[in-house]
Amino acid sequence: MGFSDKIRVLNVNLSTREITREELDAEVSKKFIGGRGAGTYLLSTLLKDDVDPLSPNNPLIFATGPLTGTAAPTGGRYMALCKSPLTGLVASSNSGGQFGAELKRTGTDIISIVGKASAPVYLAIDDEKVELRDASHLWGTDTHFTTETLKQELGWEKAKVACIGPAGENMVRFACIINDKHRAAGRSGVGAVMGSKNLKAIVVKGSKRPEANDQERFMEIVKARVKLLQDHPVTGQGLAALGTKVLDNIINEHGAYPTRNFQTGVFESTDEVCGEALVEKGYLKKNRGCYACPIKCARVTELPTGSKGEGPEYESGWALGAATGVKDLIAITEVNYMCNLYGLDTISCGLTIACAMELYEKGLIKKDDLKGGPAMVFGSSEALIYYTKQTALKQGIGSRLAEGSMRLAQECGAPEYSMTVKGQELPAYDPRGVQGQGLSYATSNRGGCHVRGYLIAPEVLGIPEKLDPQATQGKAQWVKVFQDLTAVIDSMGLCLFTSFALGAEDYLAILNGFTGFDYSLDEMMECGERIWNLERMLNMRFGMTSQSDTLPERLLKEPMPEGPQKGNTVRLEQMLPEYYSLRGWSEDGVPQKETLQRLGIDGL
Amino acid sequence: MGFSDKIRVLNVNLSTREITREELDAEVSKKFIGGRGAGTYLLSTLLKDDVDPLSPNNPLIFATGPLTGTAAPTGGRYMALCKSPLTGLVASSNSGGQFGAELKRTGTDIISIVGKASAPVYLAIDDEKVELRDASHLWGTDTHFTTETLKQELGWEKAKVACIGPAGENMVRFACIINDKHRAAGRSGVGAVMGSKNLKAIVVKGSKRPEANDQERFMEIVKARVKLLQDHPVTGQGLAALGTKVLDNIINEHGAYPTRNFQTGVFESTDEVCGEALVEKGYLKKNRGCYACPIKCARVTELPTGSKGEGPEYESGWALGAATGVKDLIAITEVNYMCNLYGLDTISCGLTIACAMELYEKGLIKKDDLKGGPAMVFGSSEALIYYTKQTALKQGIGSRLAEGSMRLAQECGAPEYSMTVKGQELPAYDPRGVQGQGLSYATSNRGGCHVRGYLIAPEVLGIPEKLDPQATQGKAQWVKVFQDLTAVIDSMGLCLFTSFALGAEDYLAILNGFTGFDYSLDEMMECGERIWNLERMLNMRFGMTSQSDTLPERLLKEPMPEGPQKGNTVRLEQMLPEYYSLRGWSEDGVPQKETLQRLGIDGL
Repeated sequence: MGFSDKIRVLNVNLSTREITREELDAEVSKKFIGGRGAGTYLLSTLLKDDVDPLSPNNPLIFATGPLTGTAAPTGGRYMALCKSPLTGLVASSNSGGQFGAELKRTGTDIISIVGKASAPVYLAIDDEKVELRDASHLWGTDTHFTTETLKQELGWEKAKVACIGPAGENMVRFACIINDKHRAAGRSGVGAVMGSKNLKAIVVKGSKRPEANDQERFMEIVKARVKLLQDHPVTGQGLAALGTKVLDNIINEHGAYPTRNFQTGVFESTDEVCGEALVEKGYLKKNRGCYACPIKCARVTELPTGSKGEGPEYESGWALGAATGVKDLIAITEVNYMCNLYGLDTISCGLTIACAMELYEKGLIKKDDLKGGPAMVFGSSEALIYYTKQTALKQGIGSRLAEGSMRLAQECGAPEYSMTVKGQELPAYDPRGVQGQGLSYATSNRGGCHVRGYLIAPEVLGIPEKLDPQATQGKAQWVKVFQDLTAVIDSMGLCLFTSFALGAEDYLAILNGFTGFDYSLDEMMECGERIWNLERMLNMRFGMTSQSDTLPERLLKEPMPEGPQKGNTVRLEQMLPEYYSLRGWSEDGVPQKETLQRLGIDGL
Repeated sequence: MGFSDKIRVLNVNLSTREITREELDAEVSKKFIGGRGAGTYLLSTLLKDDVDPLSPNNPLIFATGPLTGTAAPTGGRYMALCKSPLTGLVASSNSGGQFGAELKRTGTDIISIVGKASAPVYLAIDDEKVELRDASHLWGTDTHFTTETLKQELGWEKAKVACIGPAGENMVRFACIINDKHRAAGRSGVGAVMGSKNLKAIVVKGSKRPEANDQERFMEIVKARVKLLQDHPVTGQGLAALGTKVLDNIINEHGAYPTRNFQTGVFESTDEVCGEALVEKGYLKKNRGCYACPIKCARVTELPTGSKGEGPEYESGWALGAATGVKDLIAITEVNYMCNLYGLDTISCGLTIACAMELYEKGLIKKDDLKGGPAMVFGSSEALIYYTKQTALKQGIGSRLAEGSMRLAQECGAPEYSMTVKGQELPAYDPRGVQGQGLSYATSNRGGCHVRGYLIAPEVLGIPEKLDPQATQGKAQWVKVFQDLTAVIDSMGLCLFTSFALGAEDYLAILNGFTGFDYSLDEMMECGERIWNLERMLNMRFGMTSQSDTLPERLLKEPMPEGPQKGNTVRLEQMLPEYYSLRGWSEDGVPQKETLQRLGIDGL
């Protein structure tokens, strides 16, 4: 199957059960690449008016990039997009595994779903053949059971499945979509939107292998980049050996490992929960890679209790561990499994429980509120397990936790204990120790997030060069470039982890090599900038203002109490105006007309 | 199948694969009743010389009582007897469930096993038909898998299975025998002896219903006692609602709830782990009873992780909880499940880990000894789970834990941290708060044990009358009577829990009603005394002296540091001489010749 510059969209209306196909103009592909970019474009055409994220009118888009399903290293990614029930802004969640590549092999680039089924259904795609089928028997079951059952009942042994668990069905605001059992389109509640549509799963089975028009030349480009990845210490060895959990000790020693709901940046039990401990305790059985991935960072694990699964990764292990003060690596890993089974975002789950623990500590959640459940105290492995289940099933106080930490803390009259940006829980780096990351958090188009501009790379890891993490000068430019390049990588269908070893020129070579588009480096980066600005415009259409380009009060005003970052706060005010200016936005953070015109999105 | 006063023994020699039957003289039945008594008698005839408990020469006896398999309330018990690899003394472990009753229905009262199979085998008994079959495929598998597989491969849907798990195979000194998946002949390492014989399991399927010679009259006696049990607050309601875990709060409030290896008698987190919490947290799904049991104290539970099983009971929950300082009821319950699957005695397992935690605290076990495992600190749910598995599989430091706390602490040069009597770990009552229980522990014929004379009943619960727990005067007499009556109940084949509601006269009525023996009350109690003295003589034959009729130094010399029992120690020296005297033993605790003659066991 050769590359087409016309993105092939499969439209599914769950209300009418109408299924149609369309192709987007070649211009869309050229301007937005595909994946995240094309998905955002599609979202902007579908979401003209104000829409409740959990209503039938919210579209749910599964978008592959041009490189998805190809031989490009890590070329197996897809994005799930919609309006987020957690943030009310753009939800745009990336996932690996095999599902995206298989979807591409059916000959579809993007699935766009609107409406709501009258009863639970799943979507079965076998190349051109598309069917909506009854899923009543799967409602209430976990993601692993659903995945196995669907493959069996369809007799499609090699099919790939993306589905929701009970958390998505129950519309927990941070429910995720799970594909291939262990991979998640994790953040912003895309699983809740899927649940609101009564759509339990999508099963794909394809026979079409995507190829470049000059496949031979493309393979040469690919081989050279695979070698770069294999030769780099991070992507060649580090991530295989310890996974992303190689970071636990590094970030803790940097003093930016958020502990007990960001009360401090040093976790005293990191040695019990770090990536090295996962190996030494024998829980790690092997590593595993997604489609076409030479890095293979996934953790295949087994616990002394007999439980088996994948993970935890760095973010999940942190959110369920240091963030809640839990130092029991068995409990952390078990809850990671539970989140995969229920379909819960581990970061928002862990940090919402951490927020609840602080509210309990401060007397704002009372023992009576727990209705017989374990004391909600920092460090309690039992509370972590118990309230994760309650959240997924909206049982007891879980119905309040299921709203996310922002709504929970507001309801308790103490919004300051919600460690969120724009309503989405922050990830595993305390920005008081990494100023640029603070700016990246504050300006992320999907709220608290580490994969929209990973400043940890230069500020802590020294990739591609070492920056002073406490400097604010110059960080705006770094953030802008990282945000734009990230948008390109997400839109191509590749994994961000390639960027430890690959530079913009490598992505350019791969992208041009496959599509034949012949972008210049500037043109490619401008695609990223275009996508970023379109996301920003969409968010503003949803009512967002620059007021929300900020961080939790704690990070701006409470000096870090101990460790290497003692005394530091985030000096956001020193970076934000420069960032707006570099972006070509007004002092109020609104993209200027000229900027939109330059990017060719002033009409959208 | 009418009652026969000739106990029917099935002899199995695993070395020669010879299987024979014999009947014991009616006198044995009259003097020793059956069950524990007859098993001990048989043991004394088989164990003339010094024998390594893990050698082929150690017999392993499964003994039902005359009431086992009948309609008598709780009439489903059997005993597993041998020389203990943990204590070097008599092992005599009682279990409920269905196995004992089913064994009786095959027409066999006692199975006596000697020798060692050349490869793993199991014993299949279908009424008269007895077979030794290959069990190689089951070696290394857990007790539940073994149970299910055997029933399936034999096609014996309603068969009952007693088996060992990996802990028994590995000859962990406190491995147990598990029957009906969740019931255990728990203490003194009877599972290790089964493992040493390469005997994986016994499967029984019987068709013979045991009946009294005057069954109608017997049923009247039974019905009246069932009513007594149903009408009593403990056996009628308390044990059904909360199981034995009704005791957590009672014993903690009494200040005798041994915490962190008996360092104190008050556990600050009892409210998180007690029987009430098991209900309120929703882990308890229902209660369940053993064969013919109107009490139904077993806990059918399910955890938020999805794990299911039975328990924990009071002793198990304490040993895995307060004793180790762990307050995570999920972890405690999960480890209880693991102990059932691996075939580990929960009390010795928990208290051996607790001992190791204290040795770690004192620097006598070092971080390096843990070989990458979690820090062995009090309160660590992860350490509890991790080292339970290591113990069962003899991995890492687990090979040292598998020897039990006495050998572990001795090896570390600090035997004082082993909370054992005669090498067996103590149960869940700190005798500094219950003097009579202290005497009962010190004189128990199988070492640290609460089911050889449960003085908690009068000293704390006020059953049958309330005694001052700190008084020492008169306790010797209570201990003697309780020990003797317990021996009778164990030998009949009934559950000790009946004694909350039934008195000696009730047992007499049941026993006489079924056997037609027409004992007087004194004669029946003398049977108990006879059994007790025979056990004592056997222990002395194994080298035991009165030196070991004592308690851990901590309980004799360290005053309780806090709580209602603050300042107390066990004043054993005030009770032991009186006890010896009442028993008709010398000042050195040796049964006098006249005593043995009076009991008719001077020739044994």
